[in-house]
Amino acid sequence: MKPSIPKGTRDFGPQEMLRRKYIFNTIERVFQKYGFLPLETPAMENLETLTGKYGEEGDRLIFKVLKRGASLYEEVGQSLLQNLNWKGLTDRDKSNDLMDLGRLAGTIHFTGLVKDIETKGVDMALRYDLTVPFARYVVQHQNELAFPFKRYQIQPVWRADRPQKGRYREFYQCDADMIGSNSLLNEVELVMLLDEAFTQLGLQVAIKLNNRKVLSGIAEVSGQPDKVVDIVTAIDKLDKIGREKVEEEMRAKGVSDAAIAGIAPLFELKGTWKEQHPQLEQWLASSTTAQEGLKELSFVFDTVGALKSASLEFDPTLARGLDYYTGAILEVKANEGTLQSSISGGGRYDDLTGVFGLKGMSGVGISFGADRIYDVLMETNKFPAELGGSTQLLFANFGEAEALQCLKLLRQVRDAGIAAELYPDKAKMAKQFKYADDKGIPYVAILGENELKQGIITVKDMKSGEQKAVKQNDLIHAIQQA
Amino acid sequence: MKPSIPKGTRDFGPQEMLRRKYIFNTIERVFQKYGFLPLETPAMENLETLTGKYGEEGDRLIFKVLKRGASLYEEVGQSLLQNLNWKGLTDRDKSNDLMDLGRLAGTIHFTGLVKDIETKGVDMALRYDLTVPFARYVVQHQNELAFPFKRYQIQPVWRADRPQKGRYREFYQCDADMIGSNSLLNEVELVMLLDEAFTQLGLQVAIKLNNRKVLSGIAEVSGQPDKVVDIVTAIDKLDKIGREKVEEEMRAKGVSDAAIAGIAPLFELKGTWKEQHPQLEQWLASSTTAQEGLKELSFVFDTVGALKSASLEFDPTLARGLDYYTGAILEVKANEGTLQSSISGGGRYDDLTGVFGLKGMSGVGISFGADRIYDVLMETNKFPAELGGSTQLLFANFGEAEALQCLKLLRQVRDAGIAAELYPDKAKMAKQFKYADDKGIPYVAILGENELKQGIITVKDMKSGEQKAVKQNDLIHAIQQA
Repeated sequence: MKPSIPKGTRDFGPQEMLRRKYIFNTIERVFQKYGFLPLETPAMENLETLTGKYGEEGDRLIFKVLKRGASLYEEVGQSLLQNLNWKGLTDRDKSNDLMDLGRLAGTIHFTGLVKDIETKGVDMALRYDLTVPFARYVVQHQNELAFPFKRYQIQPVWRADRPQKGRYREFYQCDADMIGSNSLLNEVELVMLLDEAFTQLGLQVAIKLNNRKVLSGIAEVSGQPDKVVDIVTAIDKLDKIGREKVEEEMRAKGVSDAAIAGIAPLFELKGTWKEQHPQLEQWLASSTTAQEGLKELSFVFDTVGALKSASLEFDPTLARGLDYYTGAILEVKANEGTLQSSISGGGRYDDLTGVFGLKGMSGVGISFGADRIYDVLMETNKFPAELGGSTQLLFANFGEAEALQCLKLLRQVRDAGIAAELYPDKAKMAKQFKYADDKGIPYVAILGENELKQGIITVKDMKSGEQKAVKQNDLIHAIQQA
Repeated sequence: MKPSIPKGTRDFGPQEMLRRKYIFNTIERVFQKYGFLPLETPAMENLETLTGKYGEEGDRLIFKVLKRGASLYEEVGQSLLQNLNWKGLTDRDKSNDLMDLGRLAGTIHFTGLVKDIETKGVDMALRYDLTVPFARYVVQHQNELAFPFKRYQIQPVWRADRPQKGRYREFYQCDADMIGSNSLLNEVELVMLLDEAFTQLGLQVAIKLNNRKVLSGIAEVSGQPDKVVDIVTAIDKLDKIGREKVEEEMRAKGVSDAAIAGIAPLFELKGTWKEQHPQLEQWLASSTTAQEGLKELSFVFDTVGALKSASLEFDPTLARGLDYYTGAILEVKANEGTLQSSISGGGRYDDLTGVFGLKGMSGVGISFGADRIYDVLMETNKFPAELGGSTQLLFANFGEAEALQCLKLLRQVRDAGIAAELYPDKAKMAKQFKYADDKGIPYVAILGENELKQGIITVKDMKSGEQKAVKQNDLIHAIQQA
């Protein structure tokens, strides 16, 4: 019976790890260059910190952690005993109580008991994302932090989702947020950051921008501002299902035909921000909310334009996590490879910390989808050949005397910053070469009896198969030159 | 009501994180230089992978994760219903069943029900250490791995321990292990690795070595080989409680006075390995196990000595995790600061993967205690002044036109590899300077109306308070020179 891991979770072996580290390190360096500082929060939060923050569906997807065995045992038992409330009761009464308990047990749901388990046996849960723990951290440490506070956080999160292709129960999030400043310069900085990160990863991307206030304005001028969520949820699917189905969905949600007709101009918009901007100005002139959104968009497009950076595109149908964002909405898609979904996203959310009692803190942030970036880099063959971190040189093992001399050279080679190792056992050369091959080690140093006597060492290039003998003192030079 | 985190868990804010990253990155670079490759395993393992691997006490300290709410709900309820087994029963029978259930409920322990919760409601648990998941990984992927397999792993683990000073419910382990080779060169490599890691961390340490076989030999020659665990558990406390109490404990565990007298020479041993070795040879001559252990120790001391590395010390009372190690036992203590406990440890364990069905795989590994290393580096003031990752330059914000020029310079500064940011709001200078101070940013660039006109920028050194104006084109040079 071979051991296994839970469905929806993954082991990351050496090769995958080196690739993942390349992605995370690249993004982390950019975060730091932009003034974001690292934060880590615990994997387990108090249950009450998480519940109610992700909607009803989200609550069901939170992994709950049992209190240590002993206390669960006692607490559930004692709670049941208290519920029975036997003190001072006659046997007859006790029997009735038992009947009640039994009736309860007789229903599949057994509500009371499950409640007991959850309230008495569980007080912690695994974090579901990095945003709520970040908000919790800011409120908890508000008196120690320098605002505006800029942090990045790269940690796994857990979701009790049904596992399927590309959807995991444990995955890393990779977020940068700033909180405590309303300035649109923050949005500009995030666009620059996204551009730099993907440039460094060597990936052609489109960075798309929209503003929640423009979406609200569209709902307003259509005459059904109360239907903004339904309208925008439908619009968000335009890419996938097309205009006809979008309008169908709006109709199904009770959006009037008049309102649907009122929204129609959105689907006719084409071209760059500069081309669409005047049309939107005119169309949404009656909505002050929309005007504010357009002004915000103008500032970001103009400023980014003046810096001649980033292929920033306007996408008036972009809506990501609508209930969440209140201003800018950002999304990144790869212009290479076949992946259709976004590889990064973000936006501004007013009142990030209000739920924990700290009002008036506006935040804006972005999140990199590491798993998807990994897939795109694999598909487009964009991972560097040299990922770093791998062994460069293997010393073959010919026995004790030779190995001792190898250990001395090994020390020198490592002091020169070259990752190297000695095969620990005196094994057949074929086996030792296979080890180097399997591990992707490019050079093998051979120091047998002859070499030992002559003070030389033979270096084999595993790719070309070429061998050349060098003086032991020249080994470092030979590897660095190769 | 201020939000909080669970007892025994921690937030790591920016300053702590930069220090922790310094420790982990230093150790990781050394791991890689020695040919270890990264591995990450999921936070949650199947419950059956973990149970029974850490002893009875350990099992109780494993955090169990509830299945997603919905299925717990149903599964526990259905299991109870099945237990009641109502089908085809008369009302009278049902009543009796209810009585049974009630009787069960009436005991505090409520064994059956808790069992149900645990078997039906729980199938995953949080990893307790990195060694068992490593063994599980090796067995699961045995056909894809190049043996001997060398991996490092730096990830948090969770224990449902009672939190107290220095004992956490979540903490990082930082392990390197090699598996699939019996060669003592592996032990030599680990000693070298420990030496290099602590040298790079700038910490004076003592690396201590012992061998489990010598400890077994001592129990043998004392005449009570069956008491080896009790004898060694007591000896292990010598440092803390002294010889008298150690002998008292042995006596309490049923070790005979004759055996205790037989062990006495151990406490008289003094000096270096070279001095103690002949005495041990003589004393333990009758135990072939001890002789084997001494031979292994000789090889490691001789080889490390020939490489003139590492202050490797012999400590015949060293026993760490006795039930676990079968050969070499390693421990590192700081020679600086006040911390008495070890900051790193390890050893060889034969048959690491046997429990998962793969026999004959010997492993040897070490583990760095990151939290303790952190404490020692803090106490001895050994963290570098420049941890890396922090912002070097803050552009003050004087309004829109000035900020736009700052953004252009910001881009250039970052392209030169300098971490920099722009204060996002036009705020009072005192507030902007305070932000730089709080965040430990050493330089502030001031570009007001005058500077904008003249094409210059004023750089303020936050430590000395000095200001000097430079041409905007010379800004990068000015910062790099400073």
